[in-house]
Amino acid sequence: MSYSSQLLEEAVDAFSRLPGIGKKSALRMAMHLIKSNKSEIKSFFIQPIEKLVSDIKFCKECNYLSDQEKCNICLTRERSAETLCIVENIRDVMAIEETGQFKGLYHVLGGVISPLDGVTADQLNISNLTERILDSNINEVILAISPTIEGETTIYYLSKMLEPLQITLSQLARGISFGGELAYADEMTLGRSILTRTQYKINQL
Amino acid sequence: MSYSSQLLEEAVDAFSRLPGIGKKSALRMAMHLIKSNKSEIKSFFIQPIEKLVSDIKFCKECNYLSDQEKCNICLTRERSAETLCIVENIRDVMAIEETGQFKGLYHVLGGVISPLDGVTADQLNISNLTERILDSNINEVILAISPTIEGETTIYYLSKMLEPLQITLSQLARGISFGGELAYADEMTLGRSILTRTQYKINQL
Repeated sequence: MSYSSQLLEEAVDAFSRLPGIGKKSALRMAMHLIKSNKSEIKSFFIQPIEKLVSDIKFCKECNYLSDQEKCNICLTRERSAETLCIVENIRDVMAIEETGQFKGLYHVLGGVISPLDGVTADQLNISNLTERILDSNINEVILAISPTIEGETTIYYLSKMLEPLQITLSQLARGISFGGELAYADEMTLGRSILTRTQYKINQL
Repeated sequence: MSYSSQLLEEAVDAFSRLPGIGKKSALRMAMHLIKSNKSEIKSFFIQPIEKLVSDIKFCKECNYLSDQEKCNICLTRERSAETLCIVENIRDVMAIEETGQFKGLYHVLGGVISPLDGVTADQLNISNLTERILDSNINEVILAISPTIEGETTIYYLSKMLEPLQITLSQLARGISFGGELAYADEMTLGRSILTRTQYKINQL
């Protein structure tokens, strides 16, 4: 598309660098900014993004996003310091926090072991993991990693690494999703959910 | 959603101000920037947007977007200065330019008359229109405005305004879209396309 304006063209290119944004959406965004108030764009759009990029930190304890040296989750005293949940990335922490079902601490790996993508164990954030567990009151580690091939490899690697520490290792329950229809569940999940069936109790969630 | 970071929260708010972007997409965008190279974000994302917002102008002749006082379309000598195409907004100019079928000049109204939305004729960019036509070689004005109720009102208003100038007034052809199926065309369009049928010529596009 020809825009007759170099400025517009460059802004459209800028927006289309964002994930999931094509040229048409990028043009819509640029046109939206052109129609908006200049000082509002500065204070409500550009400044927050600039500040995010320049000031965001990763918690030196757990590697989660943070505004300071340590994140709010590591700093608060209201959470249990006995359970550590190991996750692949920051989005997983957000997803688990959304459930409101976990009140322990996190450890963000920043990826999973993936030989095909050239990601080896030493590229993950695990160098301080053993030390972190030994220096704390942690008595259970939840390996909350996606059950993909790479995820399972990572779970296996971590379980071998943490085995000598003699703490409880657990993984997320596998089974049929809430609201899922049996007929559409994959064989593997359905098969395992029969093998690992749990006792039914009246009034349980 | 709780982000545990004020910086992230503000950036997500910033992105969700863009049209068509919800909180989830905004979060994806913010996370994308966090993972990217800082100096690249500055030069390839923030700067082009800042420059667009601060430097973009509207052509003083036709009201189209421009980097200078006058837009490329008004400045070039390769276009016909005899036909003027009046459109509602900047996006319409882009759409018509994409077709490659029009080589005249444009005039962007910046809206259509819409009493329900409180838009009256004097809020449109028409104050210099009569003068512009009189001062030029324009002998045909194409009223390329969407055939909505507001668009038709605007077409009627402009036709009354331009009638005394004794130039050719035309509007876009109405009919069935290319690739459109008759069974799905609305009654109004289909009915009118029968009444205003054109002679079939072999080899015509």
